[in-house]
Amino acid sequence: IEVSKLSFKPASTTRQELSGSTFRRVRRVLMVWLPGSAIFLPNGARIFNRLVEFLRKQYVRYGFQEVITPTIYKKALWAKSGHLENYAEDMYTVTSTSPSRAETTEAGEEDEYGLKPMNCPGHCLIFASQTRSYRDLPIRYADFSPLHRNEISGALSGLTRVRRFHQDDGHIFCRPSQIEGEIRKTLDFIRLTYGVFRLGSYRLALSTRPEQYMGDLEDWQQAENALKRALDASGQPWTVNEGDGAFYGPKIDIILKDSDGKEHQTATIQLDFQLPKRFNLEYIAPAPELEKKGETTTDPDLLAAYGPVAPVMIHRAVLGSVERLMALLIEHYNGKWPLWLNPRQAIILTINDTEPVKRWAKHTRNLLLGISPELNVPASPTNLADIDLDESSRGVGRKIHEAKSKGYGIIVVVGPKDVDEGTVSVDATSLIPADSDLREIRRLKTLKMTPERLR
Amino acid sequence: IEVSKLSFKPASTTRQELSGSTFRRVRRVLMVWLPGSAIFLPNGARIFNRLVEFLRKQYVRYGFQEVITPTIYKKALWAKSGHLENYAEDMYTVTSTSPSRAETTEAGEEDEYGLKPMNCPGHCLIFASQTRSYRDLPIRYADFSPLHRNEISGALSGLTRVRRFHQDDGHIFCRPSQIEGEIRKTLDFIRLTYGVFRLGSYRLALSTRPEQYMGDLEDWQQAENALKRALDASGQPWTVNEGDGAFYGPKIDIILKDSDGKEHQTATIQLDFQLPKRFNLEYIAPAPELEKKGETTTDPDLLAAYGPVAPVMIHRAVLGSVERLMALLIEHYNGKWPLWLNPRQAIILTINDTEPVKRWAKHTRNLLLGISPELNVPASPTNLADIDLDESSRGVGRKIHEAKSKGYGIIVVVGPKDVDEGTVSVDATSLIPADSDLREIRRLKTLKMTPERLR
Ligand SMILES: [Zn+2]
Ligand SMILES: [Zn+2]
Repeated sequence: IEVSKLSFKPASTTRQELSGSTFRRVRRVLMVWLPGSAIFLPNGARIFNRLVEFLRKQYVRYGFQEVITPTIYKKALWAKSGHLENYAEDMYTVTSTSPSRAETTEAGEEDEYGLKPMNCPGHCLIFASQTRSYRDLPIRYADFSPLHRNEISGALSGLTRVRRFHQDDGHIFCRPSQIEGEIRKTLDFIRLTYGVFRLGSYRLALSTRPEQYMGDLEDWQQAENALKRALDASGQPWTVNEGDGAFYGPKIDIILKDSDGKEHQTATIQLDFQLPKRFNLEYIAPAPELEKKGETTTDPDLLAAYGPVAPVMIHRAVLGSVERLMALLIEHYNGKWPLWLNPRQAIILTINDTEPVKRWAKHTRNLLLGISPELNVPASPTNLADIDLDESSRGVGRKIHEAKSKGYGIIVVVGPKDVDEGTVSVDATSLIPADSDLREIRRLKTLKMTPERLR
Repeated sequence: IEVSKLSFKPASTTRQELSGSTFRRVRRVLMVWLPGSAIFLPNGARIFNRLVEFLRKQYVRYGFQEVITPTIYKKALWAKSGHLENYAEDMYTVTSTSPSRAETTEAGEEDEYGLKPMNCPGHCLIFASQTRSYRDLPIRYADFSPLHRNEISGALSGLTRVRRFHQDDGHIFCRPSQIEGEIRKTLDFIRLTYGVFRLGSYRLALSTRPEQYMGDLEDWQQAENALKRALDASGQPWTVNEGDGAFYGPKIDIILKDSDGKEHQTATIQLDFQLPKRFNLEYIAPAPELEKKGETTTDPDLLAAYGPVAPVMIHRAVLGSVERLMALLIEHYNGKWPLWLNPRQAIILTINDTEPVKRWAKHTRNLLLGISPELNVPASPTNLADIDLDESSRGVGRKIHEAKSKGYGIIVVVGPKDVDEGTVSVDATSLIPADSDLREIRRLKTLKMTPERLR
């Protein structure tokens, strides 16, 4: 039962959180909702991929390594992780559709898989796949795998049942002495990310040791003190939920307040003293008895004796459920996307549909996207992911109006005069320029459009 | 049985295809193989992500739109698609682990899901989610979802059982008159991609109408002629496997020959006249009777009458199984990765471990990666995905030797003199420079490393 505390809020509550009209708009252009899981249409997939791309860049900064892990694992693994005991209600079982293809265990019974509801066991397997030294730690793994849970989050409608969602999931394996530093870095990662989204203020809530806990009291107290120091250092307001932690460790929740004052739990940081023990994870360190307590020594005798120590595991998600964060962003931006997230970043419009103008429009698109006929990885001079093209014969005024109402950030207009002079007109008036957007516009405007540069 | 022709060769045969020593090296640094599915370790995930990134850039060029679709669908969908009838042996069933959480259908029986072995039904759902006009076609969807199949590809070992793999899966919905053009574009996409990998020559094999076929004979003949014209135009050698097509349409396989002369089937292009009908897919076109045959008219009476027409569906994968293509690339490059694919692109080595030198090394890394303390999306001046750092106190000669033996493409060395003069030394001698690599080196060498640019 307690393992379910690891669970993040379900993705599909977004359907209820969204107001009717916004939801209908979302449904139309970004996603189609099947009961419990979303199909991302092309524009929705663009936003999803840009969020992933953004996080990947931050992973370079914060020292996370992305891994790609299986979707299904044998039931034996879920027994080892404790999920079968504590989380079975919310899990799906995978079996062969055809009895003749069923795998059998050595004992002869049919073997089954569990569809993963979280990535922690997979990341433990990777940690365990090599011998680790204290010098290797912290080791930080990130994973964007789709996750499946059979959670019932409300009795009103079958649509609120969660089935499939994505999480910007990550696990840090660290030495006890590194807890405070890792929590500080994670809080900084969260501050940076929510600052980029401009989603407004959030508060942090620390959940401490419950009455039913596992592990040493001393470990708990040291870890909670480390978390409190990191929270103080974050400069964010924080509160305590006394006794509300999981049996395996304290946690910090990030609670975002939207413009209506409604609160949303998004990011989570969860310490875990137990899972590393279930998986027999260890690293080799000098003075292991002190190492376990996060203490150091200069005593050469103690330092000469190396031994195994269980790492502390930190589960963390910065966005939480990507689907749910996307729903918050959709509400928040209300169609006025910052350029980097805008699924409709740029469009090229022709003043007429004559051949030279259409050719010039295509050349401009290829130039801006770095598309050349060479056998090569395109090297784009801009950061635009894609550029649409409207070369229809309709009036340019109507085309501009339509492009603006569809939410295009940058509108490039080309006409016969541009063909002669090697120019284009860039209209970026519908942008709410963030710094990065301004940089993009400047880059666009200073690009030389001369035919020599076109292929 | 015939639907299984859609199946691509299993990913896990890679284990057998790989020579022992290469496989052990792969196992160590790129992937861990569980029976039937791979865990991508950090360096393996880097290569995987770069392949996906490369394809995304080509999707902009070739007009594909990426979508993200569910992993599990109700059995009713698999009945509609014909998979339950023809492919059940190879599929996995998903059910609730807890009986109390099982969903029941209206008739009261327990409802089950199928774990998707391919993306086609999901893409059909997206096509069907809107009314489509002939002006909207072709519509091209791409998907990188993990797929699961319970295929037995060899009796020798349980390890050859396929379980989970990724495919650069795509589906084109087009008008009958667009078949030839779409096949030409797809063959061009394949030519470009395999050219970039320099994997050597390949041949194309056309499989034609089998004795047991569905649909109109005339449709088949027209489609096969269109495929033959596209094959001729490709400039690649091609052969015919007479009568070897699936019952639902002809196909083209791409067969790669490795340096040992061994053949590998990678890319596939499969026409499908049946699945659109099973899903009642349609678009609205003028002169629908002619439209169905891929013919046009100027008769105003015929053009005035609009009606529904079933699109032709083209299944296509350029890499095929990404896991298997990665295994081929690992063999092919044998540790000498081109820069853009190299999981170890660059490393910065310090000549000593004094504070100013270590600070300068970190500054250099931040500069090259575009990391600044600002709240912003990093804007990297290079295309390097990540840069490692070795600031240990070991001798620089040893550090350079180790970096080269690990396969780093670019080695940046910084010492006390560099701190004073605002310089770095760039060693790219271990690169086999492709054009794009040279561009990257030039970019690196011309970057101004002056402290003003550092934060
Ligand atoms: Zn976790
Ligand atoms: Zn398909």
